[in-house]
Amino acid sequence: MKIDSVDFFYLAMPVVTTAGDGSQDALVVRVQAGGHVGWGECEAAPLPSIAAFVCPMSHGACRPVSASVLGETLDGPEDIQRIAAVLAFNSMDLLQAAHTWSGIEMALWDLLGHVRGEPAWKLLGYKKAYPKTPYASVLFGTTPDQTLARAKEIRAKGFRAAKFGWAPYGDSLEGDIAQVEAARQGLGPDGILLIDAGQIFAEDVEAAAQRIASLAANKATWLEEPFGGHAYEAYGQLAKRSGSVKLAGGEAAHNRHMAQHLIDYGHVGFVQIDCGRIGGLWPAKQVADYAVKKGVTYVNHTFTSNLALSASLQPYAGLSDSRICEYPTALSSLATELTTSRIAPNANGEIEVPDAPGLGVTINPAALKTYAVDVEIKVKSRTIFAPPKI
Amino acid sequence: MKIDSVDFFYLAMPVVTTAGDGSQDALVVRVQAGGHVGWGECEAAPLPSIAAFVCPMSHGACRPVSASVLGETLDGPEDIQRIAAVLAFNSMDLLQAAHTWSGIEMALWDLLGHVRGEPAWKLLGYKKAYPKTPYASVLFGTTPDQTLARAKEIRAKGFRAAKFGWAPYGDSLEGDIAQVEAARQGLGPDGILLIDAGQIFAEDVEAAAQRIASLAANKATWLEEPFGGHAYEAYGQLAKRSGSVKLAGGEAAHNRHMAQHLIDYGHVGFVQIDCGRIGGLWPAKQVADYAVKKGVTYVNHTFTSNLALSASLQPYAGLSDSRICEYPTALSSLATELTTSRIAPNANGEIEVPDAPGLGVTINPAALKTYAVDVEIKVKSRTIFAPPKI
Repeated sequence: MKIDSVDFFYLAMPVVTTAGDGSQDALVVRVQAGGHVGWGECEAAPLPSIAAFVCPMSHGACRPVSASVLGETLDGPEDIQRIAAVLAFNSMDLLQAAHTWSGIEMALWDLLGHVRGEPAWKLLGYKKAYPKTPYASVLFGTTPDQTLARAKEIRAKGFRAAKFGWAPYGDSLEGDIAQVEAARQGLGPDGILLIDAGQIFAEDVEAAAQRIASLAANKATWLEEPFGGHAYEAYGQLAKRSGSVKLAGGEAAHNRHMAQHLIDYGHVGFVQIDCGRIGGLWPAKQVADYAVKKGVTYVNHTFTSNLALSASLQPYAGLSDSRICEYPTALSSLATELTTSRIAPNANGEIEVPDAPGLGVTINPAALKTYAVDVEIKVKSRTIFAPPKI
Repeated sequence: MKIDSVDFFYLAMPVVTTAGDGSQDALVVRVQAGGHVGWGECEAAPLPSIAAFVCPMSHGACRPVSASVLGETLDGPEDIQRIAAVLAFNSMDLLQAAHTWSGIEMALWDLLGHVRGEPAWKLLGYKKAYPKTPYASVLFGTTPDQTLARAKEIRAKGFRAAKFGWAPYGDSLEGDIAQVEAARQGLGPDGILLIDAGQIFAEDVEAAAQRIASLAANKATWLEEPFGGHAYEAYGQLAKRSGSVKLAGGEAAHNRHMAQHLIDYGHVGFVQIDCGRIGGLWPAKQVADYAVKKGVTYVNHTFTSNLALSASLQPYAGLSDSRICEYPTALSSLATELTTSRIAPNANGEIEVPDAPGLGVTINPAALKTYAVDVEIKVKSRTIFAPPKI
């Protein structure tokens, strides 16, 4: 087959706020090859990712993503790896390329899976997919009381694990302690409690270290992203002092090297990969293999649709020891409506990786219309991007 | 002062080819604050970098670059650092943001320098600027004979140092040996010979290691970018085997951490920073300080205009031991005409960092017109980007 077309659907909620909710917009990718269709989703800023696909070439090592994808042969997984390598070279100087490619790469696995009648995780080399224990991923309440209520609600819904994140965490030591205590109290003594600092401490190891005692006292399993994605030294220093509380990070990785460096130099206990940023399923699978070798637990990072969730589960579907998965529970209507199929906890409260061709998720064409953002990019009076037909 | 406006001028040659010539297009930035003007230049893909400035917000940690810049206070260097920190947080998930910010950051130093009547290197903390020995930065010829002629020509022009790069280097061991020998022969026994592999070996340490003997025999000072920008392990392994030939790299760094990691884990002998990518002058200065501490030599990476060249010289202007600088000698007419002032070798064949306010370079408005690329970006029928007025 040849890759005939790559289309980008820029979707957004009518109002986008500064809330830490990544599901307020989406960049959905449709790839067509040999009469087959595959779907993927790029994480983060849609417009720059579209621009990285359609932009004019700057020079030989700064070509648009389209130049390495359109018209290429796609007959098996090795073609996806080959295209990724060509792209890495041809778009070496185009920073945004990794995010653009991530959604395309997912769609290529989805498409190949449909052609072969196999789930993507089988194409990635796994024989079996193991169910995961979902953790509800939510924001801290503005007050500890709100967090307590939120934690109880999560527990009442049947979740055994929950992650609380971001603002107001980091505002004050006392406030943070109260928030973590409230989360533990609401979740109950046997719940898996995860805390996400959202990079608030930048590189300030001491500030982060002050929080460890309360995290340990409240049996938090991990402290996620205390620092910037590249601050490996800060991670490494805190890891030495964090005792039973493991560090978690990796969502910012836009190539497998970054994730591996966070393992090797940052000494995280959990590596969290967003397939919509790292370059899709294949580099994520390589990180999963690397994590196993290094005794680190792989976890998905997902805060958007069920399409992104399915994609993010595939690279570690076959790892029986990687037990938990991030499961967004407060999605926008856009993200909820994007797929007609739903990935929901089973009777045991566990998430099963779809055992269906490709990513095993069906796109809802109505959502592509309802939430479409009208974008036009013209260069030299020629339209190089307009919303595709559904 | 408040930052009143940030304008992007997308310029390009009438025809852009796949040649490894980064001066075929440019993204020039004009910042206005308190009635003053500053200029900067973003490296690489103009359209995605523009999109990163104007795009709609995706969520609180994925805001457009504009959201952290427009209307901000600019009274001194500390404001530039503050804005950079705010931006890093607000645009955490917007990968291209670093490239966009780089040109703006340069322009802010230029503007501040004009306000204070001081060159940017003084604002960065240096008391004195030391002249640099320029190396002519050129591509290998298609054949060794062409490379020989090119090297002789460079020497005849008065250059004592030259860097040869990219294709066909890496095609075959025999070919590479012949190319390096030709370059050395043309340059003469006392010339400083530098070789740039342009990431051709990806992560293949053995392939790169096979070239070391010929590089050592021909007294190459460095082998630049044998591997991908993130392949620290490959760098580190090759560094152990490269003897008198030091490794050089760092141009891909889009934050100071990446450059520091290449020093710490990749064990390069030379760290090469492009101010148009790393986030401008301030992170580059931090890398320069770090390099001194680690016994590594800082070098600029520049393959575009004299505006970019001046910017790239500022962060290490005051380091007397960092003797050489990259000096592009085969610029497009666009890059040549962009500035009316020229940074050219002095009577001793050395490059003096401009001792004039800001970046010390004057923009040629005619070039902004001649090479303008007509771009329009519309979102929801509203034009969010169009070429600015000159």
